Amino acid sequence: MGEFGLIQRHFAQLGPLASDIRLGVGDDCALLAPPSGCWQAISVDTSIAGRHFLADADPWAIGWRALAVALSDLAAMNAKPSGFTLALTLPEVEDCWLADFSAGLRSLSEKAGCPLIGGDTTRGPLSATVQVMGWCQPEHVWRRDGAQSGDLLVVTGSLGSARGGLQQMQAINTRQRGERWSWTPLMQAYMLPEPPYAVRDAWSSQPGVHAAIDVSDGLLADCRHLLEASGVGALIQDDSLPIEADLEILLGQNQAREAALSGGDDYVLLCAVAPDQLETLTRLWPATVVIGECTESLGIKLASGRSWIQEGFNHFL
Amino acid sequence: MGEFGLIQRHFAQLGPLASDIRLGVGDDCALLAPPSGCWQAISVDTSIAGRHFLADADPWAIGWRALAVALSDLAAMNAKPSGFTLALTLPEVEDCWLADFSAGLRSLSEKAGCPLIGGDTTRGPLSATVQVMGWCQPEHVWRRDGAQSGDLLVVTGSLGSARGGLQQMQAINTRQRGERWSWTPLMQAYMLPEPPYAVRDAWSSQPGVHAAIDVSDGLLADCRHLLEASGVGALIQDDSLPIEADLEILLGQNQAREAALSGGDDYVLLCAVAPDQLETLTRLWPATVVIGECTESLGIKLASGRSWIQEGFNHFL
Repeated sequence: MGEFGLIQRHFAQLGPLASDIRLGVGDDCALLAPPSGCWQAISVDTSIAGRHFLADADPWAIGWRALAVALSDLAAMNAKPSGFTLALTLPEVEDCWLADFSAGLRSLSEKAGCPLIGGDTTRGPLSATVQVMGWCQPEHVWRRDGAQSGDLLVVTGSLGSARGGLQQMQAINTRQRGERWSWTPLMQAYMLPEPPYAVRDAWSSQPGVHAAIDVSDGLLADCRHLLEASGVGALIQDDSLPIEADLEILLGQNQAREAALSGGDDYVLLCAVAPDQLETLTRLWPATVVIGECTESLGIKLASGRSWIQEGFNHFL
Repeated sequence: MGEFGLIQRHFAQLGPLASDIRLGVGDDCALLAPPSGCWQAISVDTSIAGRHFLADADPWAIGWRALAVALSDLAAMNAKPSGFTLALTLPEVEDCWLADFSAGLRSLSEKAGCPLIGGDTTRGPLSATVQVMGWCQPEHVWRRDGAQSGDLLVVTGSLGSARGGLQQMQAINTRQRGERWSWTPLMQAYMLPEPPYAVRDAWSSQPGVHAAIDVSDGLLADCRHLLEASGVGALIQDDSLPIEADLEILLGQNQAREAALSGGDDYVLLCAVAPDQLETLTRLWPATVVIGECTESLGIKLASGRSWIQEGFNHFL
């Protein structure tokens, strides 16, 4: 089967039909009709075998994850997904692998309301580049640079689990890596993250979210991006980070805290919110946890007084 | 230098400032404000070292080419470029290579009026995935499926040169490949294609362009895509294809014609146009050449009666 048959079989009409799509896969370009008064948010993420995921992992999960990490950026901007493109590079055409990969992609695509509208398939070392597009209300955009001294820092889910899951995935054999139904909850947190679109839906029209970022590189690293863009500092209550019991059992208390601070791949939101809006936001999203506050003095301080070595993930360090 | 310093040095503010960009590189997403009444055209293309370009080629040209092939798709839809994202995968950080790569990218970006608005840098085998976005008038979209029996088939530039250039590039040594100022015109046609945005600007509001596609896979292959989408056939005047004298000297008449029919990487437009508009279109774009016409009987026939073996490029055949 050639390139065109392959695309046709696995990627035609992947995801929900949406009213703003005038033309999907199959022409030189896809065509979108922007809803009136909206801005478009755009983000792109590349996932490479052996770096962002284990090459022998369940292809269903690889497909899910490639889209999840990109959707997380849309949520962090308060944008509603409208569609995505997929640039997929494959070493060879394996029909079963592709069927599973596209099924995982489709599953999240339907759940998040974000159809595939275009793409490119090429031959080479396995990687997937997903670009997501979404619409947002100009008056409700969550940028990184809006945090103010006195704002509370909140996260919308638990931290560090993905780091524990990665460790567990590395310790099992190829057969188990290929069977996602055998995975522990921590492995699922790493390979099948739920991007934070539900909390963004809950908060989309609320006032009081002054700045937001998704936690992908690690809490400290992403917190620093937000603080530097906003020109403030932070005091982090590192003894009250939301950590799953499973992770503490696996790593012990100290290492679990370290994973929560710098592990990465959490795909929850970190937001700077007005203190007087915390109650409303927590009512709308009960998993909200306050982890610190923004300060006038720059830099990040940990309330415990501990120091840390690694801040987050950097592809080229 | 880490990932963030790298991005800052080479990719911050690449390309012209544009009024529809509300937020560029540096947040979770870029933000675009759609011009009223426009549709958005979107296309994505991956270029892989050793497959779509020679890894030791001049990095300036690699940057130019990665954007050129994507811009060609926008032109084929009659869309005006508004911005692009770059997902760049690098085996290692070489400052000189990146400076040249981004300079080539910047040069075309400025020429085409298409700024970089976001991206992702990762570590791995060298490849560049460019996604371009543009705005088009809904009443002037050039789809593939609008060709009618009796339409003339025209191309907007010469065919086959890139194939000849690739052959020449493969025959020279690494040092010469790295020096774009030493390249022949055919090598330039292959590595530094001029995407057809100028002809699209000239024709953007004209009636009579019933269907269009850019010639990337090869004339016969791309012609077939257009014909199948439109439900018509074609008679191609294969003895009057626009072929550069350099190419005939390099390959001889027969092989030059074959390169023109199936070589690929030409990045000119193939359009089905109303015969009564040909004069106006040719006045606006003098390089327009009629290469055949659309017929009711399906399939492609060559007027010379010749048969052909290879239709075009397929990554997985």
